[in-house]
Amino acid sequence: MFAGAQISLYPMTDDFVGVITSSLAALDPWRDRLRIETDDISTLIVGPPEILFPALRDLYVAAASTRHHVVLRCTLSRGCPGEPDDAICSTNALANPEEPLKDRQNAAIAQVAAASETGETARAQFSLYVMGGGDHMAEIYGCIEFLKNSGCFDRAKNFCTRVIGDAGPVFTTLEQAFCRFGPPEGHVTMDLTVSANSPSITG
Amino acid sequence: MFAGAQISLYPMTDDFVGVITSSLAALDPWRDRLRIETDDISTLIVGPPEILFPALRDLYVAAASTRHHVVLRCTLSRGCPGEPDDAICSTNALANPEEPLKDRQNAAIAQVAAASETGETARAQFSLYVMGGGDHMAEIYGCIEFLKNSGCFDRAKNFCTRVIGDAGPVFTTLEQAFCRFGPPEGHVTMDLTVSANSPSITG
Repeated sequence: MFAGAQISLYPMTDDFVGVITSSLAALDPWRDRLRIETDDISTLIVGPPEILFPALRDLYVAAASTRHHVVLRCTLSRGCPGEPDDAICSTNALANPEEPLKDRQNAAIAQVAAASETGETARAQFSLYVMGGGDHMAEIYGCIEFLKNSGCFDRAKNFCTRVIGDAGPVFTTLEQAFCRFGPPEGHVTMDLTVSANSPSITG
Repeated sequence: MFAGAQISLYPMTDDFVGVITSSLAALDPWRDRLRIETDDISTLIVGPPEILFPALRDLYVAAASTRHHVVLRCTLSRGCPGEPDDAICSTNALANPEEPLKDRQNAAIAQVAAASETGETARAQFSLYVMGGGDHMAEIYGCIEFLKNSGCFDRAKNFCTRVIGDAGPVFTTLEQAFCRFGPPEGHVTMDLTVSANSPSITG
């Protein structure tokens, strides 16, 4: 299995380079479990979901704590058939597809309830894509039902779903959505935007 | 059919609000063919791909011409089974699935060759997702082969492909990738990032 993300941090300030470099230090405790490569558009982070999402949470919280308007953008993927297996990605976090949707939803809700708070609010929106055979929309609708009961649901928008809350439960919600829906051997991706300190909060 | 995008413009400057509001004027000539709604995370643009991509190109060029480091982020979708049909989205731009891959690739290349230049460079990376039954990877690989012959190909990365060139041919390349691969009645999405004036150009 191959899993990871292309991520970018967008600080809306003249000192965007300073905000990015200082925030990246938040990844240090996770670096031995991840492989990280950077170019001018994004940073590739390769690793299993249960390391990736807490690492992204810590990066987001560090950037948000600068009080600038900052956006974290991630293209996450697991199981892409075009990518080679990689030992660093081995994981036990993916759901058993034999397990009924209801049980997976309840397990996801329990994980979110157990998440520690960080003190920073995260306003996120994301799209979850389940590729290949099978009824991909059944998994998507199952995931949306979990989101509505997660405690972090904000609202559905065209093409995506908004979640809101403390960054701790929000990133756990995102991790659960990514891991527990869609087959474990399948190709699942997530297009994720997390926004901090926007001056145009509408609700 | 329902088609459109959730888009965001991220200017890396203290005057990000000024850059966003001045750039949005570039959408004015397209507004009668699009439906536009904004919140604090993104702007929804509903309309057919042949209007959407030129409108995004003009928005990008306006933002890039400020010379600030600016990123345009888009989550594009067509044919999502969860969205209602909408007359504003009706389009003739989608390929005939009976047409062989080779013919679709050649038609796409001809469109890119005919695109007018804008004077602004666009560095883009994107992922194309083809959902539902059928061999979704065959369409993805067919699209990648087109990209390699488009004149805008930069390189493959994990989870995405980079394209580079003048914004005119680059946005036409993106439009062709979105329209000509994957079935016309299918659910196809694109996760797109276009970057201007980055201080950390690596090649």
